[in-house]
Amino acid sequence: MEFMKGIIEKEIAGIQEIGEAKEGALAKTEGMIHSIRRMGEISFVILRRRDGLLQTVYEEGKGDLDIRGLKEGDAVQVLGVVRKEERAPHGAELRLEKVRILSEPSEPLPLPVDKWKLSSSLEARLDMRPISLRNVRERARFKIQEGIVKGFREFLYGQGFTEIHTPKIGAKSAEGGANIFKLAYFHKPAVLAQSPQLYKQIMVGVFDRVFETGPVFRAEKHNTKRHLNEYVSLDLEMGYIDGFEDIMGMETALLQHILKTLETEYRAELDILKVTLPSADQIPAVRFDEAKKLVSEKYGRPIRAPFDLEPEEEQLIGKYFKEEYGADFVFVTHYPSKKRPFYAMDDESDRRYTLSFDLLLNGMEITTGGQRIHDYKKLLEKIYDRGMTEEGLETYLDAFKYGMPPHGGLGIGLERLTMNLLGEDNVREASLFPRDMNRLKP
Amino acid sequence: MEFMKGIIEKEIAGIQEIGEAKEGALAKTEGMIHSIRRMGEISFVILRRRDGLLQTVYEEGKGDLDIRGLKEGDAVQVLGVVRKEERAPHGAELRLEKVRILSEPSEPLPLPVDKWKLSSSLEARLDMRPISLRNVRERARFKIQEGIVKGFREFLYGQGFTEIHTPKIGAKSAEGGANIFKLAYFHKPAVLAQSPQLYKQIMVGVFDRVFETGPVFRAEKHNTKRHLNEYVSLDLEMGYIDGFEDIMGMETALLQHILKTLETEYRAELDILKVTLPSADQIPAVRFDEAKKLVSEKYGRPIRAPFDLEPEEEQLIGKYFKEEYGADFVFVTHYPSKKRPFYAMDDESDRRYTLSFDLLLNGMEITTGGQRIHDYKKLLEKIYDRGMTEEGLETYLDAFKYGMPPHGGLGIGLERLTMNLLGEDNVREASLFPRDMNRLKP
Repeated sequence: MEFMKGIIEKEIAGIQEIGEAKEGALAKTEGMIHSIRRMGEISFVILRRRDGLLQTVYEEGKGDLDIRGLKEGDAVQVLGVVRKEERAPHGAELRLEKVRILSEPSEPLPLPVDKWKLSSSLEARLDMRPISLRNVRERARFKIQEGIVKGFREFLYGQGFTEIHTPKIGAKSAEGGANIFKLAYFHKPAVLAQSPQLYKQIMVGVFDRVFETGPVFRAEKHNTKRHLNEYVSLDLEMGYIDGFEDIMGMETALLQHILKTLETEYRAELDILKVTLPSADQIPAVRFDEAKKLVSEKYGRPIRAPFDLEPEEEQLIGKYFKEEYGADFVFVTHYPSKKRPFYAMDDESDRRYTLSFDLLLNGMEITTGGQRIHDYKKLLEKIYDRGMTEEGLETYLDAFKYGMPPHGGLGIGLERLTMNLLGEDNVREASLFPRDMNRLKP
Repeated sequence: MEFMKGIIEKEIAGIQEIGEAKEGALAKTEGMIHSIRRMGEISFVILRRRDGLLQTVYEEGKGDLDIRGLKEGDAVQVLGVVRKEERAPHGAELRLEKVRILSEPSEPLPLPVDKWKLSSSLEARLDMRPISLRNVRERARFKIQEGIVKGFREFLYGQGFTEIHTPKIGAKSAEGGANIFKLAYFHKPAVLAQSPQLYKQIMVGVFDRVFETGPVFRAEKHNTKRHLNEYVSLDLEMGYIDGFEDIMGMETALLQHILKTLETEYRAELDILKVTLPSADQIPAVRFDEAKKLVSEKYGRPIRAPFDLEPEEEQLIGKYFKEEYGADFVFVTHYPSKKRPFYAMDDESDRRYTLSFDLLLNGMEITTGGQRIHDYKKLLEKIYDRGMTEEGLETYLDAFKYGMPPHGGLGIGLERLTMNLLGEDNVREASLFPRDMNRLKP
């Protein structure tokens, strides 16, 4: 009987190992041929690996190796001699001794993925996603996106949050509204989750603090640079708060941790993209009505709709706080009640407003959060006030009927945050396979 | 201007801190009243917190505190004096000085959540999920489920895998078949992802090694104890493999890491549930046809369908390897080609079988994996052989046309693994809010 005991070890060196190896050492590695530059008797064969680009060198007439058959897109295993070379990306290159082709493409690459910057349009790059992502800059964005999610989870584990997984198919929408994808579930009408909102609140009654990272679905008929119809939501919800300031404080510390994770563990990708991260050391918090007034006064923009915040106003708020306080992030608090869902807690001192907030980064909303109603009777009142009924909310309401601590939470749009951190102007740049009104594939 | 600078610190002690505090120290904590036992002049008020149960004690006539108004389901903040007490769960209890009620339930609890074991039926517990999960044993399962996912990701980050997020709504199903949920996507026909299979393969061409944890959707008309129609799939895919043994080796090491994570970081929950974890130190690997023969011979069960594995046969394979080798896990390799999807790599030495495997735990499949076809022409051949067309697979095929390394991967059903590790007999016990043919809520 054969037994599996663990990873089948191989003598494959990574780029760091090759960089640290002694001059003259033999090293074996593998990767995909990213580019070949033929310079007469010498050729540079650049390998693309998960840990970066590795320069290998072929010298004609050395040994009986012949690289004429090699081409971009070949997956290869190579054996070579380590040579220190300051101009090489990691301070060392490999002088090729042997090359074994593991697999070959059928056609030449349709995009010059080895170029530093792909010049193709966004549409073309999205259509050719499996290939365009092989460009080192294109893929670096998604490594950074990984870092955001990793930092999010690590921080919350450390703060006593429990990770949960809630269903994406349900009988009724959590938040109501028209922007819901509908489907037939064994002949019963069903919907796709717009957010894990009601479930994460229910789970505060179980674990006090919970988080989830997962897809959400919005059938919004928006085709803008900042909307996706499916995106990844980073959600958290926490009990035993004194007020929504506790949520903003938690998010501030969370962002600090995420930024630190990127600075330390994703340095290479930040450098590839020449990204300078914003600072979340101190984030100003300003009331919704106050923010509108400040912006109106400074930029001479009349307040047209006192209970609405238009995208241009968001941008100006971002500009204002950058100019006045050097701030990249801004909390805008006390959103109008009529703009918030039924579960938002109203401000007792002025019930037109809620104890809630948005977080703006560079003038764009990346988070919505706030305190929720925890009292069963107040929740019912709010539901009736809105002309809603308890139908479809029975289980949610049970959690409150039998006792819930004061609580609140937030949701961060992963692609929005990624886009803003990277300084991209279209959220599709921050989604591997974006879904919008016109794009259902690849 | 107000600035948020990080977590708003509070003097709230956790259970561990209280256990480590000095006799007579004052401590403030918060939680939900899990149970009240009134014993005449003394009452025990058990608080449920995210970190466990804490015993607090009220003595009549001490101070001007009166706990007559307290009830189960109240969320409270308490101040008390630490008293070492060996019989208390964490070696210390809190003698109450002050109690502040943060919120109150509207009705008495409909389930005795403070009982050690809830006696209600599975159906009743699922219907009342927000409340039944407040039982300490019920919730412990999902803490352990968190540990599985945490261990999965930690291990793969360490092995150079990149985490990806792929869309759950698509134009066409990855794997074909009838078990697909359909929906209208802005008037275009669309489907929910049965797995991230094609995307994770595409991403091997970008990052060499990738993983994803996310929901998958199967419209299977099975109503069994081991099927869910929505579940969480732990997926990985890796390039530059020599054979599918590399995948099995990686999974073995992965399971070892997950089990170690549970043993060390989730000890409390394992103890609550009295779970003894299986061993993944060495996992036997047996061919599909050989396994059928062994089981047939030992248990006198004639082989009816040589290319099928029935659930009872899986169970017997589990039994056989437990009896003969003391093994909890078994890899069953070389599944018949006709039982595997088009992308599975056939065994060149006998094309009726594939270079693939299932992993059984206690006789139940928890993983399907294997090597995939990486050669563009062979992949096309297989597609045509199956009577399929390239339609809807264009982007997937592009990845191969322009070069893909040899690769393979696997998917683990999170709820199945959880269920088996916990020794539960119904997969619904391992899903917070299960979705089956009859259950679309809560």
